[in-house]
Amino acid sequence: MTQAPDPRALARAIDDVVASYALHGNINHLDGANLPSRALVSQLLEDLLSIVFPGYFVEDQVDALTCRYFAGERCARVLRGLEHVVARAFAADGAATLDVSTARAQAVAIEVIQEIPTLRELLDTDVQAALAGDPAAGSASEIIMSYPGIEAIAVHRIAHTLHTRGVPLIPRMMSEWVHRQTGIDIHPGAVIGPSFFIDHGTGVVVGETSRIGARVKLYQGVTLGAMSVSGRDAHARRKRHPTIEDDVTIYAGATILGGDTVIGAGSIVGGNVWLTHSLPPGTTVMLDKPSLRFIAQDG
Amino acid sequence: MTQAPDPRALARAIDDVVASYALHGNINHLDGANLPSRALVSQLLEDLLSIVFPGYFVEDQVDALTCRYFAGERCARVLRGLEHVVARAFAADGAATLDVSTARAQAVAIEVIQEIPTLRELLDTDVQAALAGDPAAGSASEIIMSYPGIEAIAVHRIAHTLHTRGVPLIPRMMSEWVHRQTGIDIHPGAVIGPSFFIDHGTGVVVGETSRIGARVKLYQGVTLGAMSVSGRDAHARRKRHPTIEDDVTIYAGATILGGDTVIGAGSIVGGNVWLTHSLPPGTTVMLDKPSLRFIAQDG
Amino acid sequence: MTQAPDPRALARAIDDVVASYALHGNINHLDGANLPSRALVSQLLEDLLSIVFPGYFVEDQVDALTCRYFAGERCARVLRGLEHVVARAFAADGAATLDVSTARAQAVAIEVIQEIPTLRELLDTDVQAALAGDPAAGSASEIIMSYPGIEAIAVHRIAHTLHTRGVPLIPRMMSEWVHRQTGIDIHPGAVIGPSFFIDHGTGVVVGETSRIGARVKLYQGVTLGAMSVSGRDAHARRKRHPTIEDDVTIYAGATILGGDTVIGAGSIVGGNVWLTHSLPPGTTVMLDKPSLRFIAQDG
Amino acid sequence: MTQAPDPRALARAIDDVVASYALHGNINHLDGANLPSRALVSQLLEDLLSIVFPGYFVEDQVDALTCRYFAGERCARVLRGLEHVVARAFAADGAATLDVSTARAQAVAIEVIQEIPTLRELLDTDVQAALAGDPAAGSASEIIMSYPGIEAIAVHRIAHTLHTRGVPLIPRMMSEWVHRQTGIDIHPGAVIGPSFFIDHGTGVVVGETSRIGARVKLYQGVTLGAMSVSGRDAHARRKRHPTIEDDVTIYAGATILGGDTVIGAGSIVGGNVWLTHSLPPGTTVMLDKPSLRFIAQDG
Amino acid sequence: MTQAPDPRALARAIDDVVASYALHGNINHLDGANLPSRALVSQLLEDLLSIVFPGYFVEDQVDALTCRYFAGERCARVLRGLEHVVARAFAADGAATLDVSTARAQAVAIEVIQEIPTLRELLDTDVQAALAGDPAAGSASEIIMSYPGIEAIAVHRIAHTLHTRGVPLIPRMMSEWVHRQTGIDIHPGAVIGPSFFIDHGTGVVVGETSRIGARVKLYQGVTLGAMSVSGRDAHARRKRHPTIEDDVTIYAGATILGGDTVIGAGSIVGGNVWLTHSLPPGTTVMLDKPSLRFIAQDG
Amino acid sequence: MTQAPDPRALARAIDDVVASYALHGNINHLDGANLPSRALVSQLLEDLLSIVFPGYFVEDQVDALTCRYFAGERCARVLRGLEHVVARAFAADGAATLDVSTARAQAVAIEVIQEIPTLRELLDTDVQAALAGDPAAGSASEIIMSYPGIEAIAVHRIAHTLHTRGVPLIPRMMSEWVHRQTGIDIHPGAVIGPSFFIDHGTGVVVGETSRIGARVKLYQGVTLGAMSVSGRDAHARRKRHPTIEDDVTIYAGATILGGDTVIGAGSIVGGNVWLTHSLPPGTTVMLDKPSLRFIAQDG
Repeated sequence: MTQAPDPRALARAIDDVVASYALHGNINHLDGANLPSRALVSQLLEDLLSIVFPGYFVEDQVDALTCRYFAGERCARVLRGLEHVVARAFAADGAATLDVSTARAQAVAIEVIQEIPTLRELLDTDVQAALAGDPAAGSASEIIMSYPGIEAIAVHRIAHTLHTRGVPLIPRMMSEWVHRQTGIDIHPGAVIGPSFFIDHGTGVVVGETSRIGARVKLYQGVTLGAMSVSGRDAHARRKRHPTIEDDVTIYAGATILGGDTVIGAGSIVGGNVWLTHSLPPGTTVMLDKPSLRFIAQDG
Repeated sequence: MTQAPDPRALARAIDDVVASYALHGNINHLDGANLPSRALVSQLLEDLLSIVFPGYFVEDQVDALTCRYFAGERCARVLRGLEHVVARAFAADGAATLDVSTARAQAVAIEVIQEIPTLRELLDTDVQAALAGDPAAGSASEIIMSYPGIEAIAVHRIAHTLHTRGVPLIPRMMSEWVHRQTGIDIHPGAVIGPSFFIDHGTGVVVGETSRIGARVKLYQGVTLGAMSVSGRDAHARRKRHPTIEDDVTIYAGATILGGDTVIGAGSIVGGNVWLTHSLPPGTTVMLDKPSLRFIAQDG
Repeated sequence: MTQAPDPRALARAIDDVVASYALHGNINHLDGANLPSRALVSQLLEDLLSIVFPGYFVEDQVDALTCRYFAGERCARVLRGLEHVVARAFAADGAATLDVSTARAQAVAIEVIQEIPTLRELLDTDVQAALAGDPAAGSASEIIMSYPGIEAIAVHRIAHTLHTRGVPLIPRMMSEWVHRQTGIDIHPGAVIGPSFFIDHGTGVVVGETSRIGARVKLYQGVTLGAMSVSGRDAHARRKRHPTIEDDVTIYAGATILGGDTVIGAGSIVGGNVWLTHSLPPGTTVMLDKPSLRFIAQDG
Repeated sequence: MTQAPDPRALARAIDDVVASYALHGNINHLDGANLPSRALVSQLLEDLLSIVFPGYFVEDQVDALTCRYFAGERCARVLRGLEHVVARAFAADGAATLDVSTARAQAVAIEVIQEIPTLRELLDTDVQAALAGDPAAGSASEIIMSYPGIEAIAVHRIAHTLHTRGVPLIPRMMSEWVHRQTGIDIHPGAVIGPSFFIDHGTGVVVGETSRIGARVKLYQGVTLGAMSVSGRDAHARRKRHPTIEDDVTIYAGATILGGDTVIGAGSIVGGNVWLTHSLPPGTTVMLDKPSLRFIAQDG
Repeated sequence: MTQAPDPRALARAIDDVVASYALHGNINHLDGANLPSRALVSQLLEDLLSIVFPGYFVEDQVDALTCRYFAGERCARVLRGLEHVVARAFAADGAATLDVSTARAQAVAIEVIQEIPTLRELLDTDVQAALAGDPAAGSASEIIMSYPGIEAIAVHRIAHTLHTRGVPLIPRMMSEWVHRQTGIDIHPGAVIGPSFFIDHGTGVVVGETSRIGARVKLYQGVTLGAMSVSGRDAHARRKRHPTIEDDVTIYAGATILGGDTVIGAGSIVGGNVWLTHSLPPGTTVMLDKPSLRFIAQDG
Repeated sequence: MTQAPDPRALARAIDDVVASYALHGNINHLDGANLPSRALVSQLLEDLLSIVFPGYFVEDQVDALTCRYFAGERCARVLRGLEHVVARAFAADGAATLDVSTARAQAVAIEVIQEIPTLRELLDTDVQAALAGDPAAGSASEIIMSYPGIEAIAVHRIAHTLHTRGVPLIPRMMSEWVHRQTGIDIHPGAVIGPSFFIDHGTGVVVGETSRIGARVKLYQGVTLGAMSVSGRDAHARRKRHPTIEDDVTIYAGATILGGDTVIGAGSIVGGNVWLTHSLPPGTTVMLDKPSLRFIAQDG
């Protein structure tokens, strides 16, 4: 009974699948250097978050006595893990021999560990900004445990430090990992200042060449994007995304586009606003009373 | 070969991480009462969903004979689990001794179990509303198994019952749990009537002091938010989010802001509309033909 | 101490839960045919993705020698898994006896395996489109490993093939599975041409009767939706969602509604545009300089 | 590099493996009724042990309030699990149609649940016997948590109740499960009275037709076995293993063989004794001063 | 169909199970202090083995750089884990208040960590003894990875250090854990000198009050046991098991009984020998040519 | 409260542990080539058992259609897994460069796959022997699923094929893996003919240079061992264990020692017999009526 279908039909179907591996080789990964594993990148991020916010992101209880040992072991594990995935990423990129890739990866990995205190200093400002900015927030604990924006900026700051060191692939795998968790999609190339706060966050997109100053606050659905780009032209890697100066607040659903667009310090951009040009410092801009159509009730 | 980097560099880097634990203590959790665990809160929600929709959210087969035993054991387990995490949350809040926290947690936990039939009564109306409201929906089973809005409202109704009993931290951990699953972010404080339906749902935000009547229908990307709030001022806990009366439908991407904004019963708010003032009952409002720019084709 | 609450209170509360199972039977699944399991549907999708993009979505290393054996075993496993869940779905639908359901499920399952080469041919065009369309994309590997739009379209193409064969429930469970991963919600009924690219993707909704041509590009938050539908009327299954012709680009947050709305080939729809009528081929439409209110700074 | 060996060599080797499936079909299980799964039998035993010794064999905390709900759910789960594996075992045995197998399995399963209080009564005597018999034992808790003999007799009493109801295969899977845990191999057919105690236990073998009275105590390495049997002759199912009457103690390594061998009540059998004949009640037998050879030291 | 049996039969059976919880309370653990968890004790042993033999018992790669961080974290984790289970064990013993139990547990836990270098020094001698004693052994790696005797003595040395500090329950849980792995059952009370080697090991039993000198070698099935003990008399805790002096070898299946039995230094005890009296130093004893019966072949 | 002990005490204790890593380097594995992982060796054995007994040792259902794909994938996975662990074992052995180790490992791995049909042919005879030899055995299924002797001989035949190809370490890891499962310890070097049956098995030891003919049957506790060996002398690798010719049966607890000891074809060795010399073909030997001491009852 369980022998349907005809064995020859299945055998032929499988042969066709294997034949398509030869035909559409672009979407296989069957040869050459191994890719970095998604599972390992995910483990690295969980380990890094557990170092950066000690006591929050692990089931093991960490206390004042044990935290130093916990931190030591996690740092060592992250070091070896980074050396491994970063070397694979350099090698998969094809630009280097394996020995060179490994040497570069080792240099990058220790630098990331050395950056952790600086990351923590920045993230402390981000948590303070959330606490100051949301009347519904009860405590730093509540923010670290239940605000997706904190996880998004923490992962971004980690991914960005790898991006600035020229590591391919891994930073984007990291930003996509937290995008899946939170709905917040920040390209690792974006430069973001201290005391950054994203509330709710679902649908936020921050493009690769965005620059964001200090004390900036974004709500859900904000896009910092590029104007239309036709193809992969020579200028594609130029600055395509906006600059947001210090102390700017951008409300839900606002879209700001273009590499030359600068939102001046202290400005406020209202919800659903669509901007492709710069604003001088201190501007508040919102949709004018939108032209709404009011329709008489059906009977 | 695997001994790079210099052992002293790693030792120094780790010392710096540990030093930063002293420096930026705001983002550690190394002392005092233990926090409620994310994993346990997640387990509690999965257990509660399996009680509330018996036969749907577990791999174990539950049938007419076994459901009473299944329900009994899950309720008992949820009772003890809630006593545990809620006591930690009260204690972490700092407002009570451990004994008082425990006593309060025990009182809350049994009340939550006692609420389950009422929750089921409400959720039955929600499923019926989805079935009535979406022509693509084939059956109650399809809705419970594949509509994120049902999971979001189920978790909200659970989180809200804890919120109304003054439990800190846990309700927000719950709402953030389902936010990650579904992209729907409803603050546990929001008051929501029966027959509530959210379609698609990604990007929906419902603020803490929102009040929503019966038979309300929301689409993806709807925000029920607050007007700008400057800082954590004394009035921050006042009503900051809108009131939506019975039988209102709000289409995708609409934004409704402000604690005094009331959308009257039976109104329809069109997609992408941005409202900061009230509508009388029975109003249909949509974007007037938006002023679009049509651009001649290149050549 | 751990014996609180009063045993009778708990017993009574549980009795009430069980009583509510009789009262609100609409949201139980305690009798009749077993439903397809979420965990199994999720396993099927992971297996299918690992066949379709060999070497990417598994921890096991697959290489040029082993890929044929890997593909064979996964296809056989998927075949048996599909036969199982599809038979349950047909049976739960109530329209067929178990024998008929099983026979139909076996016919469908082998057809899905036979479709895989065609799916791969289409997905190859999708990956090429992403590579061509996003200047930030570095390689096919980067796209397959870190672009949610690729996972969304891959799962859609699988779910669609089941939908066109009349399989109930499973296609929607699949589309909701990838919706949770990516925030992209494409109904399995939508017909989508080759070289399809969704960038960022959070909040994208593509309705059941949408038709999308070749080389179409969507950004985050785009809705292809229905106009308001009052109830489950007789016409509900008619074409309710728009048609997008070849070579159209639709920017972030645009909303296009209605079954008669056709966006002509080569058109560009700007961000946040809200359209309920057709555009002729080659049209570029964007929000006119929106009427913004500029507010003087507070002192 | 990772492509060695020659693909044709691997393909040929695999073809040979598949060919050997046709050739040596005796050791395949590829057709007909499904076998009961090892994993499910193991789960059933763990569930039954957790019911029989509540609070000991689970990580979930069970207390005076919750134990009744815990017991109810586990009994219901065991009931359904037994119905499933026992029906498969009856069907695999080939002696019954599926409908008959299912009906018999359902009858057996509820009887096993009904036996649990009797099993507990017996196991209570076994724990008391261990406490009385081993001066190193500190408490009932220590015995239940760290004496392999208790786990062995508990599983035996469960397996025996299935064996006496004519269930094939499952009882032996259960006895082998605990054999692996403890090194104690008791055939499910053996009849064992109350207050049974096995100390240490590794290497104990109790044959299928053994009969053991009350208050019997065995040490490690004791065999209650059959005399040599030539082939599967007609008499093979007759009583082949000894009878041990009440209050007998058998020390480590003793071997007692034969279906007519009766060790009379109150006897003591010394270590390493090898007996193929009966002992009258009250006999103490031990190796006489064994004839040892004492060898002068080398230099 | 799946509703058999009669619901009342199941309900009654479950009521009877719960009633038996009241009747046979001796084998429940439903009240009072929590017991130490088997899973945690098992975790502690795995952690301790990974500290004691760094690089062998973990999947994580540990190297010359990372081993110090690995060791630090595992020691800290073991410290907290021991404090937890040991406090529960003291409290379950009933001899102390919770505060006193906790204080004693903390004192014991740090002492165990401080003992690790001494344990390693001893275990190094044990590994050397295995390498010297078994011609089939290829290397220290082979011994640590595939000789059950090494795991048994390592766990014994850990359990013994807890036993000598008066910790109840935990040492026996540890010795039973390794008994299950290896078939070697050494009571935590036994005192064992350096360079101890057990080959094969299945069935070895070493009793509570045994004393074993340096360079002793045991084979499978050796028992160091007590003479018959009638009941839990006042003398039960006196020395009941033999003393084995330095440089003794005891072959497979030998049984040595009695607290006054002393096997003098350098002696050799042959296989299957059964001894209840002492041997002077330098004695070699083996079974004299056993009186065998040779039976003529059947035809 | 949770900060005890004194931080300096813990820091010092950990420093001492790390210092002991330098001092007792013999029991570390911190440098040089990586060892083969226990988890991977265990996975390989489970995969090989699932190929050799298709349908028995996996939860996935395998049927007449799917078995060829299942077998193909498992063979490919085992091939790559063996190449990996065997290369590490050769390299750890220190006798070869990495390249040579890898090449040798690749040659061995394909040979093992090629051996599988021969292994199955032998194992079929072993299962038949069990069925013929134990009157309690009901079917081939019962034997494969619940007789430890079958698992022991299956793993032995796999380990032996690696041993004969000179692979270090892995064969012993395999034999120890099954020793833990079953209590049966067969050295991979032993040469064992077809139709081999071990009943019960706990405590069986078969030494490295044993030779066993066809149709041999062993019971629990049988040792085929070496006479005393003093140290790792030059002759240690010579034949040290007995030869058992065809059609011999050896009952429980018998010990046969010595490389020159030959048990002639068709002999029967009784339980607990201890032999250090040869027996001519067709001999039956058993303990003569052992000289037992009968002790008068106490009053």
